[in-house]
Amino acid sequence: MTTTTVTPLRLDDLHASLADPLLDAMTFLNEVTERYPDALSFAPGRPHEGSFEPEDVHTYLDTYLAHLAERGLSGGAVRTALFQYGPTKGIVADLVARTLANDEGLDVAPEALVLTVGAQEGMLLVLRALCATPEDVLLVSSPCYVGVTGAARLLDLATVPVPEGPGGGPDPDAVHEAARAVRASGRRPRALYVVPDFANPSGTSMPVAARAGLLATAAEEGLLVIEDNPYGFFAREEGARPTLKALDGNRGRVVYLGSFAKTCFPGARLGYVVADQPVVAPDGRTTLLADELAKLKSMTTVNTPALSQAVIGGMLLRHDCRLRAANAPARTHYAANLAVLLRELERHFPAAERERLGVSWNEPAGGFFAVLEVPFTADGAAMERCARDHGVLWTPMAPFYPAGGGERRLRLSISALSGPRIEQGVTRLAAFIRSARDRAAAG
Amino acid sequence: MTTTTVTPLRLDDLHASLADPLLDAMTFLNEVTERYPDALSFAPGRPHEGSFEPEDVHTYLDTYLAHLAERGLSGGAVRTALFQYGPTKGIVADLVARTLANDEGLDVAPEALVLTVGAQEGMLLVLRALCATPEDVLLVSSPCYVGVTGAARLLDLATVPVPEGPGGGPDPDAVHEAARAVRASGRRPRALYVVPDFANPSGTSMPVAARAGLLATAAEEGLLVIEDNPYGFFAREEGARPTLKALDGNRGRVVYLGSFAKTCFPGARLGYVVADQPVVAPDGRTTLLADELAKLKSMTTVNTPALSQAVIGGMLLRHDCRLRAANAPARTHYAANLAVLLRELERHFPAAERERLGVSWNEPAGGFFAVLEVPFTADGAAMERCARDHGVLWTPMAPFYPAGGGERRLRLSISALSGPRIEQGVTRLAAFIRSARDRAAAG
Repeated sequence: MTTTTVTPLRLDDLHASLADPLLDAMTFLNEVTERYPDALSFAPGRPHEGSFEPEDVHTYLDTYLAHLAERGLSGGAVRTALFQYGPTKGIVADLVARTLANDEGLDVAPEALVLTVGAQEGMLLVLRALCATPEDVLLVSSPCYVGVTGAARLLDLATVPVPEGPGGGPDPDAVHEAARAVRASGRRPRALYVVPDFANPSGTSMPVAARAGLLATAAEEGLLVIEDNPYGFFAREEGARPTLKALDGNRGRVVYLGSFAKTCFPGARLGYVVADQPVVAPDGRTTLLADELAKLKSMTTVNTPALSQAVIGGMLLRHDCRLRAANAPARTHYAANLAVLLRELERHFPAAERERLGVSWNEPAGGFFAVLEVPFTADGAAMERCARDHGVLWTPMAPFYPAGGGERRLRLSISALSGPRIEQGVTRLAAFIRSARDRAAAG
Repeated sequence: MTTTTVTPLRLDDLHASLADPLLDAMTFLNEVTERYPDALSFAPGRPHEGSFEPEDVHTYLDTYLAHLAERGLSGGAVRTALFQYGPTKGIVADLVARTLANDEGLDVAPEALVLTVGAQEGMLLVLRALCATPEDVLLVSSPCYVGVTGAARLLDLATVPVPEGPGGGPDPDAVHEAARAVRASGRRPRALYVVPDFANPSGTSMPVAARAGLLATAAEEGLLVIEDNPYGFFAREEGARPTLKALDGNRGRVVYLGSFAKTCFPGARLGYVVADQPVVAPDGRTTLLADELAKLKSMTTVNTPALSQAVIGGMLLRHDCRLRAANAPARTHYAANLAVLLRELERHFPAAERERLGVSWNEPAGGFFAVLEVPFTADGAAMERCARDHGVLWTPMAPFYPAGGGERRLRLSISALSGPRIEQGVTRLAAFIRSARDRAAAG
C-alpha cells in the first residue's frame, strides 16, 4: 500500500455521520460477516438467486433495444440512448408506469417518475427536497430501516422515531404525539417514513384499516407519507394489501419509493420515486415534485446508468410489465422458507420451553425477516460468539432503533437460504441461545 | 396526468438549492436545447460516439465474467458478483488500479479506490466527508464546473471562487488570498477543487510548473486538493502532463476523481475516487479516507451497479488496462475538431475584424471546450435567439462563475460534432455574433 507522509486526517474532524455509532455498528457487523464466510447466515437481506443466469442479461438488453427500434428510433438513436448521458429522470418511466398499473393498480403519469440508483438514492433525494431547514424533522417508524436514518445523518436532518403499534406500522396515536412534541419544540414534522409491507427489520405488515387510519392521521397532522415498498410482492398467502399510494388515490399525500432489487435483481441498482405532487414557484409556475427531485439528482449521480435501465426495461418487457406474476416462484420460495423458520423455532422452543427461557418471536405474513426476542443482550459481541462457536450469523436489532431499544432482539433473514439450511441454522441458533442464556444467568 | 387535490407544495418551502439561480439557469438551457432539436449544437459535453456498438456491451460483459472464472470463481460466485448487492467500494478496483498505473504512472492500492456512480457521486462523497461543519469552506477554481457548486449547494456547503490565472488553473496568489480571507472570516478553507487538464468550461490547462506551484501553495495553506480529471487524455499534441496526484507522489495532498464517461462511455455512469489518505479515529484505529467515503456511499447509492462495473471492467481487460492507447482515435478526433474550430473562428474573424468587433477566444491545447468572448451579453435569451434565428446552440458562461462574471462569454463544445458541422456552425455563429453586436450597439 502507498504510504503517505502528510499529517493523517482525523475522523472527528470529518463529517459527524462518520463517527455515528450506527455506522460503526454496521461496519462491525459487515466485518464479522466477512470473517466467517462459511457460517450459515440469517443476516443478509439478499434476494434468492434461483432463476438468475448471466445469459439473461444479454436477452434483456437486446429486448429493450429492439423495443426502442420498434418505437421508431433509428440505429443511431438507439446507440445514443444506451451509451450517452440521458435524461435525469430516466428512460424507462413508461415501462415502470405500466408495471405499477398492472401490479399495484396505480395510475402514475410517467413524468411523475424519477429512476434512481436504488431506492436509497430516491430516499436521499426526497429527504433533501422536503427537509429544507434545521427546523424540518422526519418522523420514522421504529424500528426503522438503517438506510433512512443513515441518509438523514448524511444530510444533517433530524429524525424522530414513532413506535410501531401492535398491528404493525406506526401507531396513529404515537404519530399524533410525536408530531405535537416536535411542534412544541419549535420544529416542523414534515414527513413520515414507513414500510407498510413486511417491514425491514420487523417483518410486520399493516392491515388495510391501519393504512387508511395512517393516511387520515398524516392528513390531520399535515405530514407527507414516504412509502417504501421493496417487499410487497412476497406475502405468505395469495393476495396483497393495497399500497398507501393506491389508497390515497389522487390526493398527493404519499411519495412512493420503489425498488427492482428484490423483484428483478440488486446488481442493476435500479429504483424509482413516484412524486406526483405539484410544486408552485413564487412566480406561479408549477412543476411536479419529480422535476424538483431530478434537479437534485443532477448533483448526486447526473443520471441513472442507461445500462441498468435498459436491462431492467428488457426484463419488464419480457414479463409483459407484470412483475407480480413473474415473481410467483420467488413468492413461493420465500413463503416456504418463512414457514420452515417458524416451524423449526416452534420445534426447538415449544410453548412451555419458550416461556421458561424467555424466548419469543413474531409471525410475519410474508417478506424476508422475522424478529426473535432472547433472554440476553443480542449485540455484536454475542453475534460474533455465535458465529465463532456455533457457525451461524444473524443481525442485532438495536441499530434499527433510533432512540434506543431492541437490545435483546435479533433479526433473522430467510431470503437467501434453502429449507434444509434453515433447519440446520435454527438447530445451531437454538444451541447458541441456550448457551448464551446460561452465560447471562451465570453472569 | 393524475391530478392531485392536496395543497401544492411551495418551491420556497423546499430545499434552498432548488430555488438557486444556477439550477434555474441550467434547467432553462436544457429546455431551450430540447425546443430546438434540429439546431447545430456546440452545447453538450458529450463524447464522440465513433466506435460505440451495442454488441460490444455483450463482449465486454462476457470478457469480465470469463475473467472472474479464470481467477477461480465458481459459476455461482460469478452469478452472485453480477446479480447481487456487492461491496460498497466496488468490484473492479484491481482493474482500475492497473489502468491508473499504465496510463498515469500512479501507484494506487486497490483498497484506496471507491467506484462511484459517475465522478459526480465521488465529488458529493468527498465534499460531504471533508466539509464537516458550517465553518468548513471549499475553494473552487473560477470559472468552475457546475457539478461541484451544485453538489456543494445540495450539502449546504459554502464555496469560495478562486480566479484562474493567465496560465490556466487557479492563480497561486489568489489561492493564498482566498484562504486568508476565509480564515479572517472565522471559517476554515478545507480543500481546493481543480481540473488541471482542459477544464470545463474554460478549456485551459495548467503547465507542469504551475501544478508543482499549486501543490506547494496547498501545502502551505493546509488545503487538500480535489483533482478532477475527465479530459486528461485528449491533448491536441502527443504527450501528457503529469496529474497533480502523480506529482504529489505519496504525500497524500491530492484526492483524485476519475471518470470513465469520456474514455469508455457515459451510459455506464462509472467513476471512481482515489482516496489514500489515512484517517485516525479517536481510539487510534486507522482507516483510509476511501473507507470513510464508502460509509457515506452506503447512504447515497449502497453500491455502484455491478452491471456497469462488469461492462467497464471487460472493456478495460479488452484494452489490456491501457485506456490512453485505446483512446488514440478519439484523441485524434477531438484534436482535429478543435483545430477546425480555431481555424474557422480565425477565418470569420481575422485579427483586424475581431479587434473592431470586440471578439476573442482562447486556444486550448486539448479537450472538448473553447471560450469565446463577444461584444454583448451572452445569456439564455441570446442563446435562444441564436437557436431560433440562426439554428445554432452554445452554452452561456455566466452560470460557471460562482461569484458573478463571464456575462459576455460563451462556451463552445466540439466533442460530438464532425469537422464539416463545425464549419457550418461557426458560419452560423459568426452571423449571429454580427447581428447581436449590431443589436447591442443599437441599444
